[in-house]
Amino acid sequence: MNKTVEFFKTQIGKEITQSPSPVGIWLKPILLQVEEGSLKAEFTVRPEMTNPAGMLHGGMIALISDEMIGATIATLDLPDFFPSVNLYTDFLNGAKLGENIRAEAEIIRRGKTIINTECRIYNSDNKLIAKSTSNSIKSKGK
Amino acid sequence: MNKTVEFFKTQIGKEITQSPSPVGIWLKPILLQVEEGSLKAEFTVRPEMTNPAGMLHGGMIALISDEMIGATIATLDLPDFFPSVNLYTDFLNGAKLGENIRAEAEIIRRGKTIINTECRIYNSDNKLIAKSTSNSIKSKGK
Amino acid sequence: MNKTVEFFKTQIGKEITQSPSPVGIWLKPILLQVEEGSLKAEFTVRPEMTNPAGMLHGGMIALISDEMIGATIATLDLPDFFPSVNLYTDFLNGAKLGENIRAEAEIIRRGKTIINTECRIYNSDNKLIAKSTSNSIKSKGK
Amino acid sequence: MNKTVEFFKTQIGKEITQSPSPVGIWLKPILLQVEEGSLKAEFTVRPEMTNPAGMLHGGMIALISDEMIGATIATLDLPDFFPSVNLYTDFLNGAKLGENIRAEAEIIRRGKTIINTECRIYNSDNKLIAKSTSNSIKSKGK
Repeated sequence: MNKTVEFFKTQIGKEITQSPSPVGIWLKPILLQVEEGSLKAEFTVRPEMTNPAGMLHGGMIALISDEMIGATIATLDLPDFFPSVNLYTDFLNGAKLGENIRAEAEIIRRGKTIINTECRIYNSDNKLIAKSTSNSIKSKGK
Repeated sequence: MNKTVEFFKTQIGKEITQSPSPVGIWLKPILLQVEEGSLKAEFTVRPEMTNPAGMLHGGMIALISDEMIGATIATLDLPDFFPSVNLYTDFLNGAKLGENIRAEAEIIRRGKTIINTECRIYNSDNKLIAKSTSNSIKSKGK
Repeated sequence: MNKTVEFFKTQIGKEITQSPSPVGIWLKPILLQVEEGSLKAEFTVRPEMTNPAGMLHGGMIALISDEMIGATIATLDLPDFFPSVNLYTDFLNGAKLGENIRAEAEIIRRGKTIINTECRIYNSDNKLIAKSTSNSIKSKGK
Repeated sequence: MNKTVEFFKTQIGKEITQSPSPVGIWLKPILLQVEEGSLKAEFTVRPEMTNPAGMLHGGMIALISDEMIGATIATLDLPDFFPSVNLYTDFLNGAKLGENIRAEAEIIRRGKTIINTECRIYNSDNKLIAKSTSNSIKSKGK
């Protein structure tokens, strides 16, 4: 188990309040599970995350996906930074204001230069809300 | 000129503080230009929008794209709601904390059921930060 | 079991030479497995499917994905035609000229208007070559 | 003008029968215009390119996009090979069997490692059939 995974494991069940990612703090995730290359976390749909229909905004789903993907790459404990090249999201179902949603991300392919990662997000009825995929590229230094 | 465009035009140059979209308010856009089917707005990169490298977070770029796309569809003043089916974003350059960025969205194809929209975002050096595309589908009632 | 699945099951192990899809015939698939909402088939990388590096062309991977997705929707035996709204493909590994590859497609979400489908393609070493996702929309009449 | 663009210019108006890309030959393009970083070509919808509705198959649109993107990167005359990382296509209109379609590709961002390219395809009524975007990554040696 690498040092990042080891640290993440101490955070399971707690709301993340300390993170190098300001977006990560803003989203107020609760970590559910972590392994090298996979991550599960819970989020609550807050008012500022909703669309005019009172549902979780599609862009917020993309934001949560991208943050989960970045954090999952972090579990690999690599010396380099891996910014996203692209992000693709399908919106499949909704989540309401106040609802708890669960995001599950995993590395699909770990290349030397490109890492491909997928994130699936479920609502409180365990319906798949969204499926995202992203490619991240090795960038010198963190 | 339809009523939505007419109203949007009264908001040019002001920060949006009233909107049916809570995400729209949270992003604090300043509307620059509006026509039926196209929209330009400015955003400032705030601390809670950044990644661990202190740059605008990719997911925030996707969020801004999706909000711009929704608002651009709103300029068509249609009776129905058009939720996003999917969102695709390429990340091409960065923007720093405090930087003003400009988002430009336009309808690419206005079908009866599916509307295809593109959003391009530029940093303060006028470099293309990101290019997003989305399909939205007609849903009964607003 | 619906009539389309029933017919597809009679074709398992044979090269498809009769199909309403001319692309389907051109690709010369061998059907491996079929259920309502999922499909597995094998393809051989022919010379006209390769890129300048002598590997299966990325666009051919997209073509195979789209054909598999259409055929998987056909297994639902619905009265309507479902043309693709969009197609997204990640290229993860390669396949050589002459190699047999295996494509596996399944319905992710079966909505009334939009069907979301995924296709994964493996090379002869069972490495994931590509992962595609697509949204298809109900269109009146077949 | 680099050597690749120079050669491509001698091919304008002719059907491509010699190419390092077997897919490129199979598609039988007629080159219309070429500059460093942009390319226009014409294709005819042949029977083996159609779907069950007798229209140009979505996967063929993706194939044409990917081939155009590869050829547009070739116009940069770079020493390295740039395989596609991903390909995204929106399907916006149709083209019939026998119809001549026009594909226009251009480099959106030319990075040291990643090149982002867009391709737009028009039918004979000059309607936008499809819009594709792709990221390609520098790979050692051609």
